[in-house]
Amino acid sequence: MLTAEIVAVGSELLTPFRTDTNSLWLTDRLNSAGVEVKLKTIVGDDDARLEETIRDALKRSGVVILTGGLGPTEDDITRKIAARALGRRLLLDESVLEDIKAKFLRWGRKMPEINARQAMVMEGAEVLPNPNGSAPGMYLEHEGRVVVLLPGPPREMKPMFDERVFARLVGRAGGLRVARRVMRVAGLGESAVDERIAPVYTQYKNPQTTILFNSSEIEIHLTAQGKSEAEAELLLDGLAGQIEERLGDSIFAFRGEKMEEVVGLRLAVAGFTLATAESCTGGLVAHRLTEVPGSSSYFMEGVVTYSNESKTRLLGVPAGLIESRGAVSAEVAEAMAEGVKRRAETDFGLAVTGVAGPGGGTDEKPVGLVYVALSDDAHTEHKRLMLPGDRHLIRWRASQFALDLLRRRLI
Amino acid sequence: MLTAEIVAVGSELLTPFRTDTNSLWLTDRLNSAGVEVKLKTIVGDDDARLEETIRDALKRSGVVILTGGLGPTEDDITRKIAARALGRRLLLDESVLEDIKAKFLRWGRKMPEINARQAMVMEGAEVLPNPNGSAPGMYLEHEGRVVVLLPGPPREMKPMFDERVFARLVGRAGGLRVARRVMRVAGLGESAVDERIAPVYTQYKNPQTTILFNSSEIEIHLTAQGKSEAEAELLLDGLAGQIEERLGDSIFAFRGEKMEEVVGLRLAVAGFTLATAESCTGGLVAHRLTEVPGSSSYFMEGVVTYSNESKTRLLGVPAGLIESRGAVSAEVAEAMAEGVKRRAETDFGLAVTGVAGPGGGTDEKPVGLVYVALSDDAHTEHKRLMLPGDRHLIRWRASQFALDLLRRRLI
Repeated sequence: MLTAEIVAVGSELLTPFRTDTNSLWLTDRLNSAGVEVKLKTIVGDDDARLEETIRDALKRSGVVILTGGLGPTEDDITRKIAARALGRRLLLDESVLEDIKAKFLRWGRKMPEINARQAMVMEGAEVLPNPNGSAPGMYLEHEGRVVVLLPGPPREMKPMFDERVFARLVGRAGGLRVARRVMRVAGLGESAVDERIAPVYTQYKNPQTTILFNSSEIEIHLTAQGKSEAEAELLLDGLAGQIEERLGDSIFAFRGEKMEEVVGLRLAVAGFTLATAESCTGGLVAHRLTEVPGSSSYFMEGVVTYSNESKTRLLGVPAGLIESRGAVSAEVAEAMAEGVKRRAETDFGLAVTGVAGPGGGTDEKPVGLVYVALSDDAHTEHKRLMLPGDRHLIRWRASQFALDLLRRRLI
Repeated sequence: MLTAEIVAVGSELLTPFRTDTNSLWLTDRLNSAGVEVKLKTIVGDDDARLEETIRDALKRSGVVILTGGLGPTEDDITRKIAARALGRRLLLDESVLEDIKAKFLRWGRKMPEINARQAMVMEGAEVLPNPNGSAPGMYLEHEGRVVVLLPGPPREMKPMFDERVFARLVGRAGGLRVARRVMRVAGLGESAVDERIAPVYTQYKNPQTTILFNSSEIEIHLTAQGKSEAEAELLLDGLAGQIEERLGDSIFAFRGEKMEEVVGLRLAVAGFTLATAESCTGGLVAHRLTEVPGSSSYFMEGVVTYSNESKTRLLGVPAGLIESRGAVSAEVAEAMAEGVKRRAETDFGLAVTGVAGPGGGTDEKPVGLVYVALSDDAHTEHKRLMLPGDRHLIRWRASQFALDLLRRRLI
């Protein structure tokens, strides 16, 4: 397989505040083109280290992609150092210069003198136009290797790569294509998932399977190689089908969809409406549901009843019930779900109450104890959860379980 | 300044799904110790490339930190390849082996045979115990350089570095210390911030100033070097004071606090209570407020009134007002704030209504139009916002403006 290295240039990427994320997107695109990423380097505005990095990469890899450092200032060293590492001259390209000047005119300004530097092009390199910024990119072949210089800002880098670089790499990679699929799981632990599907996925080298654990979600990533995209997709279909047989309803997404998108789609298709009543999740369930465009067609209202008094006033939960059972109880969770459904006149009422911590836990009702409840015209049910993690994670996991309870009812 | 390179080992870090985040934390700690990070490499389970990476790093940098690849499987190559690159033998350390066996016993299992590999130690290396996992780390000095091997999982890596490595690096770095501060700004654009404070911060090489733009927040990062932590902090105080003079109330955090933490602290200290009424933000304001531990002492309730009917029923907004002015209007925003304050009997009522998009916009009320309103016993005010960005960003920015409106009232 054709191999690539990605070099991200910029001192800001060597601080504790910023990481190189361009390479994630580039890796996905390179993989799709049939190119494997073997190494990534992040280097500052440091002439010697960047030159050595480029020289080393050229010795090892068929494709070297540099991002960043194409700006107009002294600190932007990628052009200069790439030319030095490749032993090529940098020449002023008059047509690029005219193009940059014209851009500044369109932006209502005269081109600052220093931007002329962005019109310097390596001998033998092809200029990659940049419709979204002033710095053009470069593409060249050097002793059998491909070298690509791309700007750092994602909105300049991505279209330039897709429009000018992707197709050529597909050609060089010899047509091997890569397809991916992300399946998401709820309601099963990581080891339970692995136990059930390892007998299946370990039989395949292609597709490759990776299980990732993110917050409370388990993701199953499948990566297949084929002579065509269709062949790769077919391989994915085969393995995904076998995994589905083993995990059933616990898979809530087959193409990387979020839980709130899956639930929202089911509600929209069926024409059902929903209202939520939250205590410990503090609005997170409503927030997630309403992140989905078009959610106003099924999400009617939510209440965040943090005080006991508000549970009674807004949801009609009897004060006596809260007193006898406690605000964190199956009975109150169910009364919250029924109350919000009745008052909002929706098809479903979904409720969460629990102890998110770090304070407020007792021996009887410790931090992490959460009740979720779901009510429709036919009946009301609840689930009792003991969730691990800190306040943030407990709240996120509770919201996930609540949405999953609704998803399973909608199946 | 003593220089370092960080090498992250693991093929999963060369997929589109995972990036090396350990290095951000390590960079912060190394900087604090007075060590500058000059290069980062991410390399897969690839013997030749890892060996070359380690050799190259040793030529250039005083400290080389490797993370990951210390597990028990064939894929975990860091021990083997580091030994090869340094020309040192790997020897079985009986006491480490006993230690690993004892750990497995405590976990209620017999040590699998392959884990014996984790007891292999490079000649001359000091073993770094790992209380949170089976793989020990290593520390050694090699031809004047420091080489450190750390496990990949953050909960194993971080304490090992802090307890066993940090102090020694401080010693080698010659006592130069680095301190940082993050100031956060609301209500001003990036160029307005830069215009006001550039005349100040450009006068200093130490502290260094970086302005970052994250979602709707502007962060000002100050980094100072001093002979002691106290000296570095004193330099930060000086520059931070001058920046505060220029930006005033627009700075809401001086130590990296979040907006909801700042608002929550002010509410708690003053003994005020709050209720929220949200339309387009869909519960995000309530969710952010209740992420803060202890928020139940001041946050009483929130309502997410997505439908017009719920604005009338839950908040008492007159149906006629919604009809005449529209749900997205200054009048309805103020009526929502007043309504939730009155019904929840709180000191403050905070409301948001707007068009988050992508659908629902009109010429008169386009996507991005948002009204926030705040009501207390004395009066009610509103702000009209035109927010750029997609649905997610518009919602986030609206929540930030709403919380900032409350923060300014509380000053």
